[in-house]
Amino acid sequence: MAKVHTVVLVRHGESEYNRDNIFTGWCDPDLTAKGQEEAKDAGKILQEYGFQFDVAYTSVLKRAIKTLYLIQEELDCLWIPVTKTWRLNERHYGKLQGKNKDETIKKYGREQVQLWRRSFKVCPPPLDEKDEHWSGNDKRYSGLSFVPTGESIEEASKRSLPFWHKHIVPALKSGKRPLICGHANTLGSLIKNLDPSSKIDLSDLSLPNALPLVLELDESFLPSQCQFLQHPSGGKLHKKRNCNS
Amino acid sequence: MAKVHTVVLVRHGESEYNRDNIFTGWCDPDLTAKGQEEAKDAGKILQEYGFQFDVAYTSVLKRAIKTLYLIQEELDCLWIPVTKTWRLNERHYGKLQGKNKDETIKKYGREQVQLWRRSFKVCPPPLDEKDEHWSGNDKRYSGLSFVPTGESIEEASKRSLPFWHKHIVPALKSGKRPLICGHANTLGSLIKNLDPSSKIDLSDLSLPNALPLVLELDESFLPSQCQFLQHPSGGKLHKKRNCNS
Repeated sequence: MAKVHTVVLVRHGESEYNRDNIFTGWCDPDLTAKGQEEAKDAGKILQEYGFQFDVAYTSVLKRAIKTLYLIQEELDCLWIPVTKTWRLNERHYGKLQGKNKDETIKKYGREQVQLWRRSFKVCPPPLDEKDEHWSGNDKRYSGLSFVPTGESIEEASKRSLPFWHKHIVPALKSGKRPLICGHANTLGSLIKNLDPSSKIDLSDLSLPNALPLVLELDESFLPSQCQFLQHPSGGKLHKKRNCNS
Repeated sequence: MAKVHTVVLVRHGESEYNRDNIFTGWCDPDLTAKGQEEAKDAGKILQEYGFQFDVAYTSVLKRAIKTLYLIQEELDCLWIPVTKTWRLNERHYGKLQGKNKDETIKKYGREQVQLWRRSFKVCPPPLDEKDEHWSGNDKRYSGLSFVPTGESIEEASKRSLPFWHKHIVPALKSGKRPLICGHANTLGSLIKNLDPSSKIDLSDLSLPNALPLVLELDESFLPSQCQFLQHPSGGKLHKKRNCNS
């Protein structure tokens, strides 16, 4: 089907927890210096491809907010409206939040950890409300009727999809060009759940830090194609990989 | 009258045009390195005083947007909603935009320039639509029915006041703590026009770069007091000056 609409999605640049191999979820680590450079590079790539945006969306987590800001700075579009929402937060990683990934594998076994990480329906072990990483006392979630204690990928996509339909689709309908800055699990599952029967191969779609993903949608706002934009190479920009099967 | 509501207002940090003594208006110069430091300092001062914010507002000009971002970064509240609006833009300086202030004085005389700068009702000479600083082709103003060619301070306050009543007052009514990052003429005239009969002496209220101004309002949302927060001195924060007469 022909391309009708385009949405650009970007996972945040490297965070301190990415660097330290720690499960993050709703924890709020900062970008590393490398992560900041990655975000600026994402802006430069988008600039070189000639992308322009009218509206932007991000989570309420600073690694995504900062990545978006740095991209906007490169594109000289800090003035566009930005909506921040918990619905675009990373999947809540429950009790695994703040834990080193290797140590978690040692404790629970590789198979179990792989299940928590990759299974669509399996929840991570729930976070205790007394845990230092519990988000229930965080002001940014004070308006929520229920703060998760851990989410499966399916649950995360169930709270991100309504945002897509309420905000992104209407923006596209009114001719706006949206940029979404978010997180690996949430963006990946969002794309997958827009059309579970799509030919887009998402089993392989592990979003790298701060590499812009151009998602093309058909007239029904269903994904028709997606591809990452690669860093300039030899003066010529090329597509890194096409995620259509 | 007793303090009932509090709004913090901050003029942007030093811009490139501030540094170069150029009339700015709707031109969009960046912050200088000094301006960035000033903005971070404003965040540190607010942090030391224990200020917290639930919502923030700024213009669509990058010197104000960046100042706000740097303050939010210091306060670790990047997640709060930010509304950007042309209604908080600096007063449009017409044909003076982009012109060196001393050269403008040489050309038109000190008295005339002083009149353009300080008079409430006098407009600067209008900008020609062919001028490089004309904003009419700028995407950020594409929704406006009329792009100004130059504004008196009165005209600027006439378009900022409706924003105050539509956004700031309802935010205060719902118990939110607003931070506004803007521009010297617009913020100054906004405060003045909230209550022209107020005892607050605004003839002396030339807003310095990035110095937080705490505006207290009574139960009718009229200014009752305002004061600047000063940099820490000798380990103790003190008030710089009280602008009540």
